[in-house]
Amino acid sequence: MFHTNPADTIGAVTAACDALTPEEDRLARDIMSRVTDTWSMWVIHVLGEHSPMRFSRIAEQVEGVSQKMLTKTLRQLERDGLVTRRIFMEVPPRVEYALTPTGRELMLKFLPLWLWIVEQLPVFVAARRTYEARLAAE
Amino acid sequence: MFHTNPADTIGAVTAACDALTPEEDRLARDIMSRVTDTWSMWVIHVLGEHSPMRFSRIAEQVEGVSQKMLTKTLRQLERDGLVTRRIFMEVPPRVEYALTPTGRELMLKFLPLWLWIVEQLPVFVAARRTYEARLAAE
Repeated sequence: MFHTNPADTIGAVTAACDALTPEEDRLARDIMSRVTDTWSMWVIHVLGEHSPMRFSRIAEQVEGVSQKMLTKTLRQLERDGLVTRRIFMEVPPRVEYALTPTGRELMLKFLPLWLWIVEQLPVFVAARRTYEARLAAE
Repeated sequence: MFHTNPADTIGAVTAACDALTPEEDRLARDIMSRVTDTWSMWVIHVLGEHSPMRFSRIAEQVEGVSQKMLTKTLRQLERDGLVTRRIFMEVPPRVEYALTPTGRELMLKFLPLWLWIVEQLPVFVAARRTYEARLAAE
């Protein structure tokens, strides 16, 4: 559900949030903070480009991630139903990860936000500079 | 810039991210984690509904936020050019906060993601239950 009128979108979010029980509210925030975590977003993005993918290949694509952090990230994404993990009984065993349809939908929801932030970087840099200069002048 | 073809959107994000210098990359991640922080999103959402708004009124609307945390959140949003702070020299002084056009644009970018997560809550709950049940059975 997306409304072309901004006020409708704001209202829809307010209504949806107001209808949540405290437990659902906690869960929604937990999922929000999880999916907007840098490593999670990056892994989802990489799997969005090529799925399925082996652990070692994902590790190559997600620059700077440690093996431990990647394992943890993939496990959380699997737990939330965003990624599937498939083991092939070969020697050595092959493990492949892929986005689920929910994971793909999520990716399509956050990519515009991510792209917008990257495009707005000069605006953010200028804003911070102005703010710091004003503080220094006070 | 938003592409209706998912593959184009993924490609555009990849290209945009690849073009970043390491410093820009750090900044983009910093801003992403800042704006997806629960309190920031909530404040932006509240100011999206009514701007300008006084500090005490924002504090009422953003349930559970401490005065200290709200001050910090507003200061960060101001620093990033997402919120303006205006002081009226009355007795006692009145301070009003409002979304900037960039802040409003950001809100419109993340509302669909937030709404989608709220709508998908049953899917996430089911996924976690399945995962826990499978772990328990192993």
